[in-house]
Amino acid sequence: MKRNLKLTIRYDGTRYYGWEHQPTEPMTIQGKLEEVIRRMLELPEGEIPQVIAAGRTDAGVHARAMIANCHADTERTEEEILSYLNRYLPDDIAVDRVQFASPRFHARYNATGKTYCYRIWVGPKKPVFERKYLTFSEERPDVASMQRAVPYLTGTNDYRSFCSNPKMKKSTVRTVDRIEIAEQGSIISFTFHGNGFLQNMVRILVGTLLEVGFHRMTPERVGEILALKDRKAAGPTAPPQGLCLMEIDY
Amino acid sequence: MKRNLKLTIRYDGTRYYGWEHQPTEPMTIQGKLEEVIRRMLELPEGEIPQVIAAGRTDAGVHARAMIANCHADTERTEEEILSYLNRYLPDDIAVDRVQFASPRFHARYNATGKTYCYRIWVGPKKPVFERKYLTFSEERPDVASMQRAVPYLTGTNDYRSFCSNPKMKKSTVRTVDRIEIAEQGSIISFTFHGNGFLQNMVRILVGTLLEVGFHRMTPERVGEILALKDRKAAGPTAPPQGLCLMEIDY
Repeated sequence: MKRNLKLTIRYDGTRYYGWEHQPTEPMTIQGKLEEVIRRMLELPEGEIPQVIAAGRTDAGVHARAMIANCHADTERTEEEILSYLNRYLPDDIAVDRVQFASPRFHARYNATGKTYCYRIWVGPKKPVFERKYLTFSEERPDVASMQRAVPYLTGTNDYRSFCSNPKMKKSTVRTVDRIEIAEQGSIISFTFHGNGFLQNMVRILVGTLLEVGFHRMTPERVGEILALKDRKAAGPTAPPQGLCLMEIDY
Repeated sequence: MKRNLKLTIRYDGTRYYGWEHQPTEPMTIQGKLEEVIRRMLELPEGEIPQVIAAGRTDAGVHARAMIANCHADTERTEEEILSYLNRYLPDDIAVDRVQFASPRFHARYNATGKTYCYRIWVGPKKPVFERKYLTFSEERPDVASMQRAVPYLTGTNDYRSFCSNPKMKKSTVRTVDRIEIAEQGSIISFTFHGNGFLQNMVRILVGTLLEVGFHRMTPERVGEILALKDRKAAGPTAPPQGLCLMEIDY
């Protein structure tokens, strides 16, 4: 039967060159999933079933609930597909849910919102067990200052200053309706919710907020950076391992 | 100044051949620590400062608070030593505390108790982010049955049946005063407290309790196994990655 599989996927991005298929890189999340689905469908080697994700994550970035869809001709039940995929996927990729979606469901086009979380570990103790899921900082950023910069970054704006792709031809306007910065013991977390994010946008936003947190930039300066529409004005791109895709809205 | 350094150490044992120095294996926790301390003390390459731990952990086993001591001639403060060690140790080994102890403090001889925790992940969802710190089981063991076996395993007993070293010449009598088995969502945890544990003892106890949990053995059988003083009577050795040394008492 023709099915449109909606997959909820969790992965540790440490070992991978990101979500998206790379012609020269065998280690991608998409590549691993497509290969296991191809074998499940008993398709010949060259015939790759396309797995479409809500978005692409960079190399080293993690996901708690990436959503993807894939059209497949299969007699298996949702439960059987779930079990097959988890049996053959590597330990750092798990499918938490398989649902038969409507034939028109498209994981990318139908996504209306995304939540990302970026976490930083601060202080003298090293995060031994969570070291691959956090970015480490010896110095503690000033959370109150960073929070004062948040209003400049929310709303519907042209986020070109926070996009790593200078050749981006499509619109760089996005709506970010929520940026929360929380401090709990040694962990400082940044939660972002919006209708979409540009390439490296969350990591550049974090890198810029940290400039404010370390008092190398005023909160007001962040508003000027947004208006400049120039990547060079913003802060550095924060390292990938602290970032995790948390949720996709439909 | 002659100092006796008491170190509180946290480590992810995944990459290591256990705590103890191995003549043919460069990757041991002890080896990494001794090398960094040697460099701190500016000793020549062959002159290894001995780091004595409260106990040895096996390959792949983790620790949240291993205690070790090391005699060193140094002018540095506790804070300076902590900072030096954490700067040069690999990311998966952290020293959380350095204290100047009395010259007679011995991490192994003075230890009066140890707490270990073994964790199992049960269910269809794979533990992607915690996969190196848990053992996975598709089948859920019966916790109530395992709890009925606990009284046979606590007290002061000859634990020879739960020791992987058949040539053990020293006493195999130990006191285990607490075994707690708890279930929280997908995680089943076993906490052991005692005055000492034989080689692989915690892992063999877990492997045997799981036999009861999977109804392949009665709770009463565990008492018989203890009395038999024969390793072959007990269950299998549970895999190392679920085990973590939690605390040492002095």
